[in-house]
Amino acid sequence: MALRTLSAENAAALDKELMSTGAYSIDQLMELAGLSVSQAVYSVQPPNKGKRVLVACGPGNNGGDGLVAARHLFHYGYEPTVYYPKQSKNELYQRLTQQLKDLNVPFTDDFPSAIASTDHVVDAIFGFSFSGEVREPFPKVIEALRDSKVPVLAVDAPSSWNIETGPPDDGPGKGFMPDALISLTAPKPLVKWFKGKHYVGGRFLSNVVAEKYGIDVPPYQGIDQIVEVPVKESQL
Amino acid sequence: MALRTLSAENAAALDKELMSTGAYSIDQLMELAGLSVSQAVYSVQPPNKGKRVLVACGPGNNGGDGLVAARHLFHYGYEPTVYYPKQSKNELYQRLTQQLKDLNVPFTDDFPSAIASTDHVVDAIFGFSFSGEVREPFPKVIEALRDSKVPVLAVDAPSSWNIETGPPDDGPGKGFMPDALISLTAPKPLVKWFKGKHYVGGRFLSNVVAEKYGIDVPPYQGIDQIVEVPVKESQL
Repeated sequence: MALRTLSAENAAALDKELMSTGAYSIDQLMELAGLSVSQAVYSVQPPNKGKRVLVACGPGNNGGDGLVAARHLFHYGYEPTVYYPKQSKNELYQRLTQQLKDLNVPFTDDFPSAIASTDHVVDAIFGFSFSGEVREPFPKVIEALRDSKVPVLAVDAPSSWNIETGPPDDGPGKGFMPDALISLTAPKPLVKWFKGKHYVGGRFLSNVVAEKYGIDVPPYQGIDQIVEVPVKESQL
Repeated sequence: MALRTLSAENAAALDKELMSTGAYSIDQLMELAGLSVSQAVYSVQPPNKGKRVLVACGPGNNGGDGLVAARHLFHYGYEPTVYYPKQSKNELYQRLTQQLKDLNVPFTDDFPSAIASTDHVVDAIFGFSFSGEVREPFPKVIEALRDSKVPVLAVDAPSSWNIETGPPDDGPGKGFMPDALISLTAPKPLVKWFKGKHYVGGRFLSNVVAEKYGIDVPPYQGIDQIVEVPVKESQL
């Protein structure tokens, strides 16, 4: 099954539509997105292979998905640590942060130490709205992700990759190839350059909306919120 | 494992705490509650044993959980029909209803016909805040649930049961014993009188909060949002 891809522009338009005429709240969508991310982490490496998981969160929605995922991972028996250096003042993100603090999930400012003592990393730094330069303090974080010896799962996009044209030719993300990627709602064009385990998550799209945006509802099984779609099959 | 029960009063206090100091939004909690309900339906009877599922929704939060469950059931490949005679003007419930309409999930006013042509029923009419009389139009609905030949899954409480004292001695709910029950967050005292498949769902409680309310985090497995807890084991 070849899954069609969703451009950055259309991904933004789809989000906007889901939250207006689609009648979804961002709380709902982010809960389901983060839940998908947590299920992908479990699929890549269940907690009996290593409980420690470092969740790197950026300042926007991608980071919010990471915060939700960290909470679910805690409940699955992982020991998450959250790196969230640019905390949003947005009320939703503050609440998602509080929910983690109430579970005594630690937050760290020291990414190099944290990545040296984890079994798994979630890259929830930049998502489909990323473009341009990687700003401080993220260049060193992306270099550390690139050099990581433990599995990295990227959310929607390997951070620093261009959504349409894939891996950067220079900068901290040059050579960054995460072990796994979860595309939320639909793969973005960058998936063409991705080599690794590829999942799709976010099981809330109707066929009608998918068709309007020229994407596909992937072949989810049972009650799973994610489905593994080998990269070759997710390219046109 | 004996799971401790949560009184109606404490269930209300816990909800209030989760949504104030706990920093959860009702959108989040209802999404996770409804997701649990949908997973219980799947456990009772997967769609290859019968796709049609009738979701009976009451006017309050129990009905909201039903609306969310109906949406997830649609995505699992079921064909849900929703009975929702007392539609709330609350903005959240209106949005949950719209989400179903956008999936072309049918709403029916004719419960007797609907229950005669379904493979499974979800009783999301009354939850832990129910007490007193069953008001119109629900007496006949509860009689139909009582007489149903297809499996009925009750959400949090068999509708018309007293939360503390269980099955009613008279009225439409006399003799109503659903095939399955999903207790959200924790079993309510009525579980002592329940004979059937019993699940607990709503995987978001911390041990600290559970301890504060004198309840237990049940032994969820893997990424499951529900766990089957035989009734005997859920009684003190």
